[in-house]
Amino acid sequence: MKIVTLGEIMLRLSPAGAERIVQADSFCVQYGGAEANVAVALAGWGAEAFFASKVPYGEIGQSAVNALKRYGVDTKFVLRGGERLGLYYLEQGAGQRPSKVIYDRKGSAFACSAAEEYDFDALFAGADWFHLTGITPALGENVQKIAESACRAAKRAGAKISFDLNYRSSLWSKEEAKRAFDVLLGYTDVCITNESQMRDFYGIMPAAREEGCGYAARFLKEKFGVGYTAFTYRKTVGTGETVCGALSDGTASYMSDEFAVAGVERIGSGDAFAAGLIYSLCGGEPLRAAVRFAAAASCLKNTVRGDFCLLDKEEIAEFAQGKKYFGVKR
Amino acid sequence: MKIVTLGEIMLRLSPAGAERIVQADSFCVQYGGAEANVAVALAGWGAEAFFASKVPYGEIGQSAVNALKRYGVDTKFVLRGGERLGLYYLEQGAGQRPSKVIYDRKGSAFACSAAEEYDFDALFAGADWFHLTGITPALGENVQKIAESACRAAKRAGAKISFDLNYRSSLWSKEEAKRAFDVLLGYTDVCITNESQMRDFYGIMPAAREEGCGYAARFLKEKFGVGYTAFTYRKTVGTGETVCGALSDGTASYMSDEFAVAGVERIGSGDAFAAGLIYSLCGGEPLRAAVRFAAAASCLKNTVRGDFCLLDKEEIAEFAQGKKYFGVKR
Amino acid sequence: MKIVTLGEIMLRLSPAGAERIVQADSFCVQYGGAEANVAVALAGWGAEAFFASKVPYGEIGQSAVNALKRYGVDTKFVLRGGERLGLYYLEQGAGQRPSKVIYDRKGSAFACSAAEEYDFDALFAGADWFHLTGITPALGENVQKIAESACRAAKRAGAKISFDLNYRSSLWSKEEAKRAFDVLLGYTDVCITNESQMRDFYGIMPAAREEGCGYAARFLKEKFGVGYTAFTYRKTVGTGETVCGALSDGTASYMSDEFAVAGVERIGSGDAFAAGLIYSLCGGEPLRAAVRFAAAASCLKNTVRGDFCLLDKEEIAEFAQGKKYFGVKR
Amino acid sequence: MKIVTLGEIMLRLSPAGAERIVQADSFCVQYGGAEANVAVALAGWGAEAFFASKVPYGEIGQSAVNALKRYGVDTKFVLRGGERLGLYYLEQGAGQRPSKVIYDRKGSAFACSAAEEYDFDALFAGADWFHLTGITPALGENVQKIAESACRAAKRAGAKISFDLNYRSSLWSKEEAKRAFDVLLGYTDVCITNESQMRDFYGIMPAAREEGCGYAARFLKEKFGVGYTAFTYRKTVGTGETVCGALSDGTASYMSDEFAVAGVERIGSGDAFAAGLIYSLCGGEPLRAAVRFAAAASCLKNTVRGDFCLLDKEEIAEFAQGKKYFGVKR
Amino acid sequence: MKIVTLGEIMLRLSPAGAERIVQADSFCVQYGGAEANVAVALAGWGAEAFFASKVPYGEIGQSAVNALKRYGVDTKFVLRGGERLGLYYLEQGAGQRPSKVIYDRKGSAFACSAAEEYDFDALFAGADWFHLTGITPALGENVQKIAESACRAAKRAGAKISFDLNYRSSLWSKEEAKRAFDVLLGYTDVCITNESQMRDFYGIMPAAREEGCGYAARFLKEKFGVGYTAFTYRKTVGTGETVCGALSDGTASYMSDEFAVAGVERIGSGDAFAAGLIYSLCGGEPLRAAVRFAAAASCLKNTVRGDFCLLDKEEIAEFAQGKKYFGVKR
Amino acid sequence: MKIVTLGEIMLRLSPAGAERIVQADSFCVQYGGAEANVAVALAGWGAEAFFASKVPYGEIGQSAVNALKRYGVDTKFVLRGGERLGLYYLEQGAGQRPSKVIYDRKGSAFACSAAEEYDFDALFAGADWFHLTGITPALGENVQKIAESACRAAKRAGAKISFDLNYRSSLWSKEEAKRAFDVLLGYTDVCITNESQMRDFYGIMPAAREEGCGYAARFLKEKFGVGYTAFTYRKTVGTGETVCGALSDGTASYMSDEFAVAGVERIGSGDAFAAGLIYSLCGGEPLRAAVRFAAAASCLKNTVRGDFCLLDKEEIAEFAQGKKYFGVKR
Repeated sequence: MKIVTLGEIMLRLSPAGAERIVQADSFCVQYGGAEANVAVALAGWGAEAFFASKVPYGEIGQSAVNALKRYGVDTKFVLRGGERLGLYYLEQGAGQRPSKVIYDRKGSAFACSAAEEYDFDALFAGADWFHLTGITPALGENVQKIAESACRAAKRAGAKISFDLNYRSSLWSKEEAKRAFDVLLGYTDVCITNESQMRDFYGIMPAAREEGCGYAARFLKEKFGVGYTAFTYRKTVGTGETVCGALSDGTASYMSDEFAVAGVERIGSGDAFAAGLIYSLCGGEPLRAAVRFAAAASCLKNTVRGDFCLLDKEEIAEFAQGKKYFGVKR
Repeated sequence: MKIVTLGEIMLRLSPAGAERIVQADSFCVQYGGAEANVAVALAGWGAEAFFASKVPYGEIGQSAVNALKRYGVDTKFVLRGGERLGLYYLEQGAGQRPSKVIYDRKGSAFACSAAEEYDFDALFAGADWFHLTGITPALGENVQKIAESACRAAKRAGAKISFDLNYRSSLWSKEEAKRAFDVLLGYTDVCITNESQMRDFYGIMPAAREEGCGYAARFLKEKFGVGYTAFTYRKTVGTGETVCGALSDGTASYMSDEFAVAGVERIGSGDAFAAGLIYSLCGGEPLRAAVRFAAAASCLKNTVRGDFCLLDKEEIAEFAQGKKYFGVKR
Repeated sequence: MKIVTLGEIMLRLSPAGAERIVQADSFCVQYGGAEANVAVALAGWGAEAFFASKVPYGEIGQSAVNALKRYGVDTKFVLRGGERLGLYYLEQGAGQRPSKVIYDRKGSAFACSAAEEYDFDALFAGADWFHLTGITPALGENVQKIAESACRAAKRAGAKISFDLNYRSSLWSKEEAKRAFDVLLGYTDVCITNESQMRDFYGIMPAAREEGCGYAARFLKEKFGVGYTAFTYRKTVGTGETVCGALSDGTASYMSDEFAVAGVERIGSGDAFAAGLIYSLCGGEPLRAAVRFAAAASCLKNTVRGDFCLLDKEEIAEFAQGKKYFGVKR
Repeated sequence: MKIVTLGEIMLRLSPAGAERIVQADSFCVQYGGAEANVAVALAGWGAEAFFASKVPYGEIGQSAVNALKRYGVDTKFVLRGGERLGLYYLEQGAGQRPSKVIYDRKGSAFACSAAEEYDFDALFAGADWFHLTGITPALGENVQKIAESACRAAKRAGAKISFDLNYRSSLWSKEEAKRAFDVLLGYTDVCITNESQMRDFYGIMPAAREEGCGYAARFLKEKFGVGYTAFTYRKTVGTGETVCGALSDGTASYMSDEFAVAGVERIGSGDAFAAGLIYSLCGGEPLRAAVRFAAAASCLKNTVRGDFCLLDKEEIAEFAQGKKYFGVKR
Repeated sequence: MKIVTLGEIMLRLSPAGAERIVQADSFCVQYGGAEANVAVALAGWGAEAFFASKVPYGEIGQSAVNALKRYGVDTKFVLRGGERLGLYYLEQGAGQRPSKVIYDRKGSAFACSAAEEYDFDALFAGADWFHLTGITPALGENVQKIAESACRAAKRAGAKISFDLNYRSSLWSKEEAKRAFDVLLGYTDVCITNESQMRDFYGIMPAAREEGCGYAARFLKEKFGVGYTAFTYRKTVGTGETVCGALSDGTASYMSDEFAVAGVERIGSGDAFAAGLIYSLCGGEPLRAAVRFAAAASCLKNTVRGDFCLLDKEEIAEFAQGKKYFGVKR
Repeated sequence: MKIVTLGEIMLRLSPAGAERIVQADSFCVQYGGAEANVAVALAGWGAEAFFASKVPYGEIGQSAVNALKRYGVDTKFVLRGGERLGLYYLEQGAGQRPSKVIYDRKGSAFACSAAEEYDFDALFAGADWFHLTGITPALGENVQKIAESACRAAKRAGAKISFDLNYRSSLWSKEEAKRAFDVLLGYTDVCITNESQMRDFYGIMPAAREEGCGYAARFLKEKFGVGYTAFTYRKTVGTGETVCGALSDGTASYMSDEFAVAGVERIGSGDAFAAGLIYSLCGGEPLRAAVRFAAAASCLKNTVRGDFCLLDKEEIAEFAQGKKYFGVKR
């Protein structure tokens, strides 16, 4: 199972525990980015996972690459050069105080790189899957070209393509995003999205949750030829929250259980969903099992610090099946 | 908006996280005190906030002053001298284990200072508001004189005076407290108190929560000429807790919503309420909005480590309005 | 009140906070073991608590001993020698992710020690109580002999014997365990167990919780002459958990309240129950009070980091009586 | 004594202790920049020190401002706006391994600000002194205009101007630097430089150290009208290093003692020299005392972590006089 | 070998590493005091070491006691009660910056205790040695009475008495100290002092180091009946320092080698000397060996963080004999 | 340049900074072992470096593998299975106190593995070099067979073999070691040793340092057919230490400069020498350059925490050439 991802990896700086940034005397140093996170999860589950990107020469770029190598991602297609590594500040929330992300990623090596720098044919040789998110084209027109070139090369290599819309309003406008999404959905086999994105970009407002995903799947299949559409849902329940997922091929639609969210980290949950879905679908799992595994991964990711989904597939499967340990697994 | 506070600032020593004191190999170093906490909150919201006190010469006193300066409090009226900085040990609770405060504040520079050392007329020149708590007169008769002199100077300067009863049984007896309260309430425009204090000191036991605050307001207005009376309420709900506030001018009374408490810190919540109230009333907000903002600040304070209410007024306002971010604000 | 415990003490290595082992750059260093944990709790409550064991010469063995001395356990019967100190890795769970224990205790000084090395008559001189758990005989046949010799010496000295079955499937098979349990229960005055152990080892499956403990108590009294039988129960309630205890002399059975579990640590809760029970029974408390104190200790232990039950008896008693502090005890 | 500085303040990220960046799991968070460092030192010694700059809205910019406020710098002339706060990574050296600085400061709020944004007349009202370094004009032509406008305003206000050449080859070429230096030296009363800068920019190569500073002082006085010229010298002695300073008005020249460098930090030593010089000269100290105080401050700065010279003037004076404590000052 | 010490134990608060107090966000928590330090060293070397004192009830007092128990000191004669535990702030020096001690010990439980509270006959039953320092009588007249009562009880029990003058000018005047020293030296068998103390208190100014200790020994023997007198010497050598010791019975005098001081801690070196001397003399070692061991302990103490001399006697002996390991002992 | 190493990788547990083990509340977690350290250094310099070993299933074994992957070592030939990962405790020295290593490596997965488990032909396919140390055969006869099988396979593949004697007296006797060394030197192309090992094992005691390495090289060439012999020397100079190296082909001998050792870590210096030598010789450098680079790497390794030589080859080359930065490289 060779899976390729492409995008930006950033330095993540976060105060320890629940400290606010204005109180912080040290920042935890981690690395992450939507597509990199997916690659780490997949590598941890045994897939041959590649991450393509560009980072600057020197210690900071090297540390980003090392963070991926440490967890088994193949980084031989990470280019070196450019001016800086993008970074983001993360203030972990506590109780009702939300976590807060402040981006400082302009002018990064990846955001300033050009499609011609990448050897896509080498990258995709033998690849089974290519995963991309909507954060990548948000970084600029040159990066949109990189994304599109990568999609074309992936298609040439016979790889399936998953695309997680992941719209970030702080990076681009809805109009810009829509233009890029329209292009990239044309290459997409598996689209990961949610209700608000379908409404904002395609005017689809299904009345009921159960039918929404199937409706969207039929829409995306007709309009762009997308094979599968997955939805993630979040819901406030009291002072807590639940996540669940849906997956549809336009004909049949499957909802996972709703999983109560608890833990220590609020970042990377969506990427864990994508990774779980790719792993299941690329491994030939039935849709019902795929969405359950993906939603369980997404929920359990909240229990692990950092962007990366450092959970065994066995742990996720046990959780998906509701197994309990009364607190300690010996 | 120039607001003056006066009181003791202490070194706060607390084991990291949920460690017990007997396990601790290091203590987090923070600084705080009821009136200082109010000043920090107000400075953070844009008010010109002054804190008057006395700390010893040397690194420890300087660090206390620096902690206030860092967050924008004007400390030019903090005197230097005396023997020591008072301190308190805080053991953070966990689950059902309560947090624990151990005072070691006897003989502090502030507690041993005299009214004559302070230049109150300079301090209150142009002041709009003066805030005081019941902890200050609890430190001794000399400090009661400081408090009373300050109240008189505040009045001369035309400032409103808020007084938070804040009775601490470990510092003085109810009899001593009552004598001091009776004096200081004579200067008070806004009194912050709660049901048990009204019962213990003034024998007022309103039957129902809704009417209690109004009843107490009328009582305090008649007896001491207090203009506004605010109440804070805490209630155990399952294994959790809620806070809410009430505010009355004796005629109309307003209750805030009940906010479920969650977070990482159990200190400074009452001071955040006081700060929220002062900020709103001094800014001319209507009573209903004032008590909502104050109660929201009080609740959200539990999500921030340390004595200080390091929350933007926008964060508090959003929380008061029930805005949700599903865990991450990007 | 002189109480003797005997068993293995291990070095415990755990990542800080909720980090996973694969992320860890440092491990918290603590020491613990079922019987040592009981000794620490009892010493903290004022009993003369002895722990007998064997640790290697050198800094690591010495540190284990020092950890016990620090909290008042008498370690003069801890032998020195052998090759290594056993250790275990603990990954603290978070949210729905369970904690995880990985043992690395083979070949430890204690596990390789022989009954002849211990001066049991000196150890038990004047002892009122001896406590043992099922982990000790699981370490090998030589250790089973140590356990049995100790029981005989305890009996000679007139001490009561409590035995906590504490079956660990990663250490031995059920067949091996049963053989050892049958022997040791022959010496046991107070047996601590639970529903699944009674079912697995003695085929007892009481229909209802209320009667189960009494039924098991009668069974163990008849078969082995056990005087008192205590049960601990854990139950999942929503995303949380509760604990409670039962205690029976075969005639009368008492259930504690169910206490909701919350806190920061999932290890040592069972040992806190045992300590609470021993302390109460050895001190002549009535059964109802004993099981309430034991269950409260067990629950509250979850709020303290580390293996050790570092809670005052007053704190446990207040908690058992449902006293609340609204978060801060001043 | 009102002293104004102007420049960029950056977030400084450094691994703890002697860790290399590729090993780091956390970064110490500090703030610094050449002119800001001078302001902090002067504020600590009792001067009224102002720092003018521009930082972005939000937590990161606020934290930079707070770091200055904490140590008493007046920040009311720090503008808000722009895209990001510049930052630098610092890897502390150890033994023969040098410390390493990696800048990531392009596109910072200050580097992108324009002269028109600053209210220089308000800034310099009543100022006695203005300090600037060669790092500021290195940030771009717009910043050179800021520097020159500031110099003109300082002159109008009657302030003395000190300029520390501080050439950084990673920021600009020698040709660019020379053009800017020529302009700014035209406003300079006190120039701080060293042998290699005088050689590289002005072709001055004095044969002997003793006469070099005087020679350069005469050259700069003639060519630019500079009143005083100070030199810093560093020399390798065995595996260690020494610093000393010289100061000349063109007529008389004074050398400080050579101070052996030892400690924990290699950044900010030059800024401490500048601060020491300004403090002494602005306070009317004779040249000999001024250069001794400046060199002592420069040397002792190596014993304090962070960019800031957090040393009392009494500590520096005692050190300059060679006072010893056998390790502990009680 | 039963050795008794008596004095004050304090909480020691010090910033991590070389941070200054004004930078500190956490303090390392340790416990120490001159006599307690001696007890810990002796317990570590196998002696039966007792420490008598008084600490407050509660977590802070308990933690001080636990710190001693952890390293094997018998604390059964530590009384409970009083208001607070004395504390001191320690700022570790770096390079030429000295360490700095700030006492906050007034009103401590020990300083306020009375001689009648102690059961000296029980304390000294079977004791071989009693050690006291000049810090104890500096705490007040009541404490001087405690010291004298203890000396009398020690004499009754047949114990030898060592007294380390340890004059601290921040605690009392020379006149007060002299009065107390004159009394206590009347009980002293072994006096530990140095050149400046002998000069300041007894006007003895021996011309040369070699003869000074012998001269002082004869003086103290004649005037007070002191049997042995030990001197410690410190000398600045370049940027470093050396320590050595001398010991004399008035007839023969022995100097240790000079040991170059290096390490991480500058506190407790004198107490390690005292402990080394007591251990050697009480164990019957010849004078030459005793002073060598004491001086080696004193020097090597500088390599261990905290007040306590946590060094094996074998380590000290190897160091005294000049054994080298090229950095690693495997 | 494909280089293969084989040996044991251990978990390394060390207190932070200069804390002693008995004081430690946390251990830094690192991984290392003589051959693994060499592989990391070589991977960092751009070689294709393989490490073959066996580690247990689970988090601890995985973390050891990840530590190598992070720094670019190919771990595909690390087997999984067995009982435990060997570990060692490291107490960092300070000043004259030496560092201390305590092994706890018995029964490790690697030490219990068998030659048959390894696919040596795959491992050595295309390899240029194989490196082995004397620690590996010290682990048992089965491991000696692994070592010998690996040597034979390396020879078959045409790889050069370097062997670092690295005798550890705590692991085996000199007689056992000699038997194993005699066998392995028969396969060795490059032998790394020192004066004491040549004397102890082969009775060679060259009179002068300059000629010693050449003499030993001729001896080893004649007796075992070793092509090159390298020596490392350490010497105490005052309170410091120096390292240097020598390299001889039996005809010509070259000494490096003596480099003064300074820094923060005393482990891995010998492995850095080996890595430097292999890198130079495998890259075709002349002997004189090779030994200079190796000795510089060995010296500079002392400035990096952990077992791994995380230094760029450029840094080492600059250091070898004596380049200085006055403390900061910008």
